Amino acid sequence: MKLWQKSYQVDQSIDTFTVGDDRELDLYLAKYDVLGSLAHTHMLEKVGLLSASDLEQVQKGLKEIYNEIEEGNFTIEPDVEDIHSQVELLLTRRLGDVGKKIHSGRSRNDQVLVDIKMFLRSEVMRVVYSYKELFDLLQELSNEHKDKLLPGYTHLQLAMPSSFGMWFGAYAEAITDDMEVLLAAYNSANKNPLGSAAGYGSTFPLDRQLTTDLLGFETLNYNAVFAQMSRGKTERNVAFAIAAVAGTLSKLAYDVVLYMNQNFGFISFPDELTTGSSIMPHKKNPDVFELVRGKCNVLQSLPNELMLLTSNLPSGYHRDLQLTKDVIFPAFNKIVDCINITTYMLSQVQVKEGLLDDEKYDVLFSVDAVNNLVVEGKPFRDAYKIVGGDIAEGKFKRPEQLNYQHLGSIGNLANDQIAQLMEMKLAQFSFDKVSSAIEELVR
Amino acid sequence: MKLWQKSYQVDQSIDTFTVGDDRELDLYLAKYDVLGSLAHTHMLEKVGLLSASDLEQVQKGLKEIYNEIEEGNFTIEPDVEDIHSQVELLLTRRLGDVGKKIHSGRSRNDQVLVDIKMFLRSEVMRVVYSYKELFDLLQELSNEHKDKLLPGYTHLQLAMPSSFGMWFGAYAEAITDDMEVLLAAYNSANKNPLGSAAGYGSTFPLDRQLTTDLLGFETLNYNAVFAQMSRGKTERNVAFAIAAVAGTLSKLAYDVVLYMNQNFGFISFPDELTTGSSIMPHKKNPDVFELVRGKCNVLQSLPNELMLLTSNLPSGYHRDLQLTKDVIFPAFNKIVDCINITTYMLSQVQVKEGLLDDEKYDVLFSVDAVNNLVVEGKPFRDAYKIVGGDIAEGKFKRPEQLNYQHLGSIGNLANDQIAQLMEMKLAQFSFDKVSSAIEELVR
Amino acid sequence: MKLWQKSYQVDQSIDTFTVGDDRELDLYLAKYDVLGSLAHTHMLEKVGLLSASDLEQVQKGLKEIYNEIEEGNFTIEPDVEDIHSQVELLLTRRLGDVGKKIHSGRSRNDQVLVDIKMFLRSEVMRVVYSYKELFDLLQELSNEHKDKLLPGYTHLQLAMPSSFGMWFGAYAEAITDDMEVLLAAYNSANKNPLGSAAGYGSTFPLDRQLTTDLLGFETLNYNAVFAQMSRGKTERNVAFAIAAVAGTLSKLAYDVVLYMNQNFGFISFPDELTTGSSIMPHKKNPDVFELVRGKCNVLQSLPNELMLLTSNLPSGYHRDLQLTKDVIFPAFNKIVDCINITTYMLSQVQVKEGLLDDEKYDVLFSVDAVNNLVVEGKPFRDAYKIVGGDIAEGKFKRPEQLNYQHLGSIGNLANDQIAQLMEMKLAQFSFDKVSSAIEELVR
Amino acid sequence: MKLWQKSYQVDQSIDTFTVGDDRELDLYLAKYDVLGSLAHTHMLEKVGLLSASDLEQVQKGLKEIYNEIEEGNFTIEPDVEDIHSQVELLLTRRLGDVGKKIHSGRSRNDQVLVDIKMFLRSEVMRVVYSYKELFDLLQELSNEHKDKLLPGYTHLQLAMPSSFGMWFGAYAEAITDDMEVLLAAYNSANKNPLGSAAGYGSTFPLDRQLTTDLLGFETLNYNAVFAQMSRGKTERNVAFAIAAVAGTLSKLAYDVVLYMNQNFGFISFPDELTTGSSIMPHKKNPDVFELVRGKCNVLQSLPNELMLLTSNLPSGYHRDLQLTKDVIFPAFNKIVDCINITTYMLSQVQVKEGLLDDEKYDVLFSVDAVNNLVVEGKPFRDAYKIVGGDIAEGKFKRPEQLNYQHLGSIGNLANDQIAQLMEMKLAQFSFDKVSSAIEELVR
Repeated sequence: MKLWQKSYQVDQSIDTFTVGDDRELDLYLAKYDVLGSLAHTHMLEKVGLLSASDLEQVQKGLKEIYNEIEEGNFTIEPDVEDIHSQVELLLTRRLGDVGKKIHSGRSRNDQVLVDIKMFLRSEVMRVVYSYKELFDLLQELSNEHKDKLLPGYTHLQLAMPSSFGMWFGAYAEAITDDMEVLLAAYNSANKNPLGSAAGYGSTFPLDRQLTTDLLGFETLNYNAVFAQMSRGKTERNVAFAIAAVAGTLSKLAYDVVLYMNQNFGFISFPDELTTGSSIMPHKKNPDVFELVRGKCNVLQSLPNELMLLTSNLPSGYHRDLQLTKDVIFPAFNKIVDCINITTYMLSQVQVKEGLLDDEKYDVLFSVDAVNNLVVEGKPFRDAYKIVGGDIAEGKFKRPEQLNYQHLGSIGNLANDQIAQLMEMKLAQFSFDKVSSAIEELVR
Repeated sequence: MKLWQKSYQVDQSIDTFTVGDDRELDLYLAKYDVLGSLAHTHMLEKVGLLSASDLEQVQKGLKEIYNEIEEGNFTIEPDVEDIHSQVELLLTRRLGDVGKKIHSGRSRNDQVLVDIKMFLRSEVMRVVYSYKELFDLLQELSNEHKDKLLPGYTHLQLAMPSSFGMWFGAYAEAITDDMEVLLAAYNSANKNPLGSAAGYGSTFPLDRQLTTDLLGFETLNYNAVFAQMSRGKTERNVAFAIAAVAGTLSKLAYDVVLYMNQNFGFISFPDELTTGSSIMPHKKNPDVFELVRGKCNVLQSLPNELMLLTSNLPSGYHRDLQLTKDVIFPAFNKIVDCINITTYMLSQVQVKEGLLDDEKYDVLFSVDAVNNLVVEGKPFRDAYKIVGGDIAEGKFKRPEQLNYQHLGSIGNLANDQIAQLMEMKLAQFSFDKVSSAIEELVR
Repeated sequence: MKLWQKSYQVDQSIDTFTVGDDRELDLYLAKYDVLGSLAHTHMLEKVGLLSASDLEQVQKGLKEIYNEIEEGNFTIEPDVEDIHSQVELLLTRRLGDVGKKIHSGRSRNDQVLVDIKMFLRSEVMRVVYSYKELFDLLQELSNEHKDKLLPGYTHLQLAMPSSFGMWFGAYAEAITDDMEVLLAAYNSANKNPLGSAAGYGSTFPLDRQLTTDLLGFETLNYNAVFAQMSRGKTERNVAFAIAAVAGTLSKLAYDVVLYMNQNFGFISFPDELTTGSSIMPHKKNPDVFELVRGKCNVLQSLPNELMLLTSNLPSGYHRDLQLTKDVIFPAFNKIVDCINITTYMLSQVQVKEGLLDDEKYDVLFSVDAVNNLVVEGKPFRDAYKIVGGDIAEGKFKRPEQLNYQHLGSIGNLANDQIAQLMEMKLAQFSFDKVSSAIEELVR
Repeated sequence: MKLWQKSYQVDQSIDTFTVGDDRELDLYLAKYDVLGSLAHTHMLEKVGLLSASDLEQVQKGLKEIYNEIEEGNFTIEPDVEDIHSQVELLLTRRLGDVGKKIHSGRSRNDQVLVDIKMFLRSEVMRVVYSYKELFDLLQELSNEHKDKLLPGYTHLQLAMPSSFGMWFGAYAEAITDDMEVLLAAYNSANKNPLGSAAGYGSTFPLDRQLTTDLLGFETLNYNAVFAQMSRGKTERNVAFAIAAVAGTLSKLAYDVVLYMNQNFGFISFPDELTTGSSIMPHKKNPDVFELVRGKCNVLQSLPNELMLLTSNLPSGYHRDLQLTKDVIFPAFNKIVDCINITTYMLSQVQVKEGLLDDEKYDVLFSVDAVNNLVVEGKPFRDAYKIVGGDIAEGKFKRPEQLNYQHLGSIGNLANDQIAQLMEMKLAQFSFDKVSSAIEELVR
């Protein structure tokens, strides 16, 4: 069953090829498709294209379907082309001809557009929430382990003293920075394209501000041609936000794998969180972090995939854009899984104490020694030469005590300020407004 | 001359290979390096690491160099490794030993970090300003040509009526959407890393809030390990913003090339803005737009280049990160050139009138005909079948008049609302705060 | 059940995360895993690590499993980790302890490596075969339509006369060029890694040349460390070959979509091969080609995905490499589907005749006019100016007759030479040698 | 001066934008442009479009220019558009009107195509030669250090014994594998497009086989439309080959950086090959390898850049394709520099002996212990459990002696076989044929 069924039959192999994985992918959109129709029909009634009694029936029918979706009792039937057809079909089966009226004043183009925007908006929220949990844990670990020192490397060479407090805290702050791009993605998704029809608007007197308000959007994609053009563009912005998160997780995972290596030996995990080898009975491998790293590295390719898909297409809808769904829809579960398993693993991390007692780490303190000389009045470049000479001649002694006091250093981690940054950024997402609108709509 | 000169001589071929293009690339940073030193030395004096009279000398010397840079009288000498060395060298030459003191409490790592952040912040501003000019022109063109119709395509097949007003206006709105990612990039760059030293902080009692305020930063990269980690990460965010702009320009250019094609024939440009062929005397080619498209498509690869460069590096500085400069620095001129030439070209675009009078475009009005039947009371699906039948049998007549009235359609372009969106987004950039801070610093 | 089962239980969520989609993905390898074991056990017997009677039992058992796989009667059980465990499990269930002996002298690392190489080798062959069918069709179409002219464009501006013979023939030749990279991919896969164990070889006296011969490999990945390093590297080479094919198909699809556009109107397809619109009753859309284009453009990202996944991993196995399966395994069905549907569609293409009779295409003949003057003795640059002047003044007349005679031009398509190129390239693949070896092994 | 100069003047800003970096980039092609003209004019004379005496003059003039290029006495003048215009201009200045005749029967499209193919062919050869030197050194190092053991890691966890012989040898073999893709790139470039004119052939009776032979090409790009289509496609194949080499070098560099880290401490380099820090006087950093890694990682983005540039362009020349030069031309120097500096550095590598004497490396021998039990008759899975138990209880003892004997293992590196693989692959490049043809042409 197709919304555009003609008198001739489409070739079967063509049908199979063009529908592709759409039935499965459209399930991601089911809930949002019904929400879109709830708002759209309200609007149709308001502008006189649907009678009050038709509206009542249709709203009841749509809410029923919404509940079926929420309860997991919803599928797209094998010979139904997509989610929009399935919802309309159910409605017509149950309500008769009135079910057919919901498609007035829109096209599948703006229907899927508004579904996708709501889906992306909601999934970005899900990423933000699970990322916030990791943030909280990292801050906790940073505070807990703030006095345990760690070698700091530059060029992967021993450089200066660091600490577990610094290390965990750094990744917490990285998360606040990723919130900038998550916010841009969210804002880009939080604009209403409904009413743009096939990308050129409609001769119906649509009230687009009304659906915007009902669906909790911040504003509209005003121009219908642009609304259509945002297909692929919004996905790209969201993909980049996912890639930013993935980049942070991948780097953290890399550190973990390195720190678990026996030559480093900085951290470990309980046996039951590691895996073994089929031929080496001594192995306890950090597979989880290797897979987080690998999955996140592949996720980083998403923006590029979308660029390759959408580049050099002139304005106006092209069927190619259907494939953005394949690329971006499954990515949310992947990134959220990676965030959550990282949180789960790190909640059990075992940190080694007293690492820097080993004299092989003495050189880490050379800058401190230089700085001590500077404080005593030597120009920096001269102090540098003296300490360098001592090291070369094996006469170097590490200073008695560490003295890092400035904001963001070992002795002053600034975790509170970072938490505050996080709160300020979170406050810029309009999560509550969206939830209220949706609750109102399905009540 | 190297800041880290040791007693042995580095092999010449190693030196050539490692310095690479750094001397040229560092010129982009010259101005910002001096600004950083101006703020840093103020701070050193405040915390007692520089005497008041030393500060006075050094500030005077630095402002002199700043002016030389602004006037174009500055180079990095052939045997000087980088911008930081050059500035320190000039200062020491002119002021003697006091020049050496400016490096206390920082490393080249945080020095180049703060330079880069200021540079990126400033270049994003430059992109925003030139993009705003294109936005203004597109809105103007949209209003000017709002009554001239254009075929609207989906699947590159004739679909529905559009207009030049819609087309130009759509790209204006696309620019407002790109402002979301430009803002994220700007915010990510607008945080002060100075004081993170080599990525592990310093034993000096640095006042990092002071340099943050002096340099006009919104906030700090607090954690020193994170500050270092932001190298590459900020560039990536900025690269993605450039890629977003590039994506918009490339699509616009594609449309232009297509519309200039003789089979379309929708727009043209004066002869002197087109180019010819070495063997075909009749050619007037749209080379500018092909090159804008091509250059922008290559610019879209930037985020991926940076991902490939920075992925799977553990935390801590690596020399690889020096190469972010090669990737991102020249990109700003490229994107700004593409924006500006697009603005220049479009300011002379010639738009064809009466396009839809040709009867080959009659089918564009089929949806209008369907909707008219719906308004007369036919259910949508039935109306669709009637009009489809008429077309198949060659009986279809286009409706007498167009009637697009809703927000964002041909008859109601919403250009004012879009202009307002733009203003709201622009207001979120802190350009004025930054300018004031810098003026104050170099006064 | 895990090959490396230890006394403690691995955490359930860890298990779920690490196994991922491996059970489904490993089904692609099932057949090859058994082939690998057939060869490996032959070798074990030859070097004295398996008795002749053990070998007989094991070979019988493995062939039984092979047949079950071929008949579709094989699954990986829910609590079994991977294909290797499943095969060993079945064997041990059926044969008792002797089943356990097949893992001697190898690790899962080289076992999955050899499976993957055989799989890739076989899938490249599948791509080559289906691509060859498209090649044959394109050559046929080129010959059939060799006299039908088509406008040739440069800069998407009318340039010179072309023909359907040229157009179809060009894509046939593009396929021969893609064979170069397919061959490189094939050669890179056609080397035996078995015997490299976990990437450092084995203390068993393995006869690696024997398994190489039994499995029909051209040569070995000799060095065990390199054999392991080829994981990801071979996939990358294969991914690039897929991307090359995808690039060709995508371009062809783009041309088709453009030529079906009403402003061009060069070709069409029977109704039942096109699709409709939910609101525009007149639409017949080229969805198949849009999807081929889109799918192929996404496939072009494969090499980059693998680069992001594998870059900056030091030598030695990492679990990240498991994820190459996700990226590359499903790609073969996708590309082969795209090839086949293209062949299917083009077998029904309808070509418009007499296109160049329309006088709007007169300018296509300007070069011919120039050349005619050159043949009459005018220097090229002067002839160019004369014809250019005629066109500008509207005096230009197209020459009476076309006269393209040289190799590779409208009048001399060189299709036979191109077919010969194809044959020569195909002959360099060792498909027969591989088939014979496998038949021998499972007999 | 433009080959296509018309009566009106092209706008200056357009001119600047469209010419871009072409003058510099075209210098890479200078030599090949003259070679192309030498062959083209021979052919023109043969088919009667040039008199014997004109040919003689022109050949003399072209060879003069060729020599000027070889001697470095050649530039593209500021107001000359490209290399083709410059050569023609010089010729006309020196010889008068006869100079103008060389452009008959070709377009700038096929002229630049043939130049690029020859350039790519020659640059691939240059990569192969310098890569071969690295190969030879790695084999030498492998043989020299074949008895020095090294820990082998999987999952970056201690796994099994390896050796410097294995490690160096592995990278040598990786080079042989990269030769597969270098060969594909070479073959793809080694086909003659000259005579395809603007992508639609010519009405002149060109003898394309003659220019093919004169320029030493293996075969032709026959179909003129395909010849044009190969622009971008060949570059892409070559870019992938560069990326393959870059991938190998990057991995090697990663290993080196890791092995130089103090926690590993496996290798070192003389002081004068390392670099220092501006604040840490003890540092000796592996900057060269970090930069090789970084540069090579950026080079890996080349194929993707070209895909983004060329995707979704319909057939026929587009000006976008000019930009392939920007992307690919400078890449050869970069990759060759990376190869050469790697060779230079490794020729001075210092390898640590006796690494595995440290008892922390005992677990590396667990597989050997398992295998010993297997040889004594224990089923593998049981032996695995016994040794695993011993390790867990701290009772594990490493076996007395290493016994790796099979092909490609520590005791049998197979370096001779690998060298032979290399020779066989090298023999498939037609370097000699090309050199002879060119020598003949310029004699």
